[in-house]
Amino acid sequence: MKLYLAGPDVFLPDAEVFGQRKRELCARYGFIGLFPLDNEIAPDPGVRLSKAIFEANLAMIDAADAVVANLTPFRGVSADVGTVFEIGYGYATKKKVFAYSNVRTAYVERIRRLVGGEMRSGNDGRLYATDGMAAENFDLLDNLMIAEAVRASGCDIVYPATDPVDPWRDLTAFDECLRRIQAQTMQAPLHVQTAG
Amino acid sequence: MKLYLAGPDVFLPDAEVFGQRKRELCARYGFIGLFPLDNEIAPDPGVRLSKAIFEANLAMIDAADAVVANLTPFRGVSADVGTVFEIGYGYATKKKVFAYSNVRTAYVERIRRLVGGEMRSGNDGRLYATDGMAAENFDLLDNLMIAEAVRASGCDIVYPATDPVDPWRDLTAFDECLRRIQAQTMQAPLHVQTAG
Repeated sequence: MKLYLAGPDVFLPDAEVFGQRKRELCARYGFIGLFPLDNEIAPDPGVRLSKAIFEANLAMIDAADAVVANLTPFRGVSADVGTVFEIGYGYATKKKVFAYSNVRTAYVERIRRLVGGEMRSGNDGRLYATDGMAAENFDLLDNLMIAEAVRASGCDIVYPATDPVDPWRDLTAFDECLRRIQAQTMQAPLHVQTAG
Repeated sequence: MKLYLAGPDVFLPDAEVFGQRKRELCARYGFIGLFPLDNEIAPDPGVRLSKAIFEANLAMIDAADAVVANLTPFRGVSADVGTVFEIGYGYATKKKVFAYSNVRTAYVERIRRLVGGEMRSGNDGRLYATDGMAAENFDLLDNLMIAEAVRASGCDIVYPATDPVDPWRDLTAFDECLRRIQAQTMQAPLHVQTAG
């Protein structure tokens, strides 16, 4: 089973090393992790680099059986938009979409903190932030399109039990996510960790 | 030709009125605008409201010929993630994806402003913000997955010529976007505005 490892991890300065760690964890569960940097896109003066990366990422999702997304909020209240595009693309192409986030703060609370001030209830029954726009209040991790796509795949979004020291590199929730995928797919691990 | 009108517009307090304005503009170009609030989802105690909205939105995209997305940055450096999910879903299901943004500031500059401090060049040739993560620097409006999906549909992202007074309600760029879609599809308008 091949898992496309979506996330803002690609923006880490040590993205290659980190991607390797994720792939190794996947292998312990018998999965093949596909990490976007693997593409090793050769420079081609005839093709925009951004277009080449776009097409390589989509080809990698096409080759995968599922998407495992890192939804840790990135430069704003929500998940990285590149990751979210890939979730939408994967969901539409009938891939299962699994996800985790290393930030445990509720979505509504994240909106309140980012926008500032106190929310108020509108006459339409919705909750409004001080930017004048409604805040989704469904007790979900992020925008409902993301959260419901993940739920439709059979697993809820996974969080770590406590706030990680380094939310960009902690792999506790990712590991738990892989464990649940394995439980769901009932696939036997290729390698079993032995105690001692 | 049916256009799914994606955007954080649904979070406006006057979303219904605003959606009606967008639909009327679509009609002037001979298009049928599908605005998510149209769903009028009936409360069903057996179905989560967030799930019902999710499914209704996807059914509306399925019924459309193209997506027209409002990419105006929303509560962070990038476009609204619900909108971005829908772009990914629409692109994967072979819909054309058109888009506009009412914020003309370059993506890299928006990252710099949101994160703070000055960017630096990394040893890997990438640009890094002070949050320690790389910033895409492709002279695109937003994350490359969004920008390249729009480019692949044949039109670049549309901006207004000057900064709108009300970026959440200004329809100049949306109107220009519709004009380009019409030019591309060579569809005759159903209603022609007459001067005077």
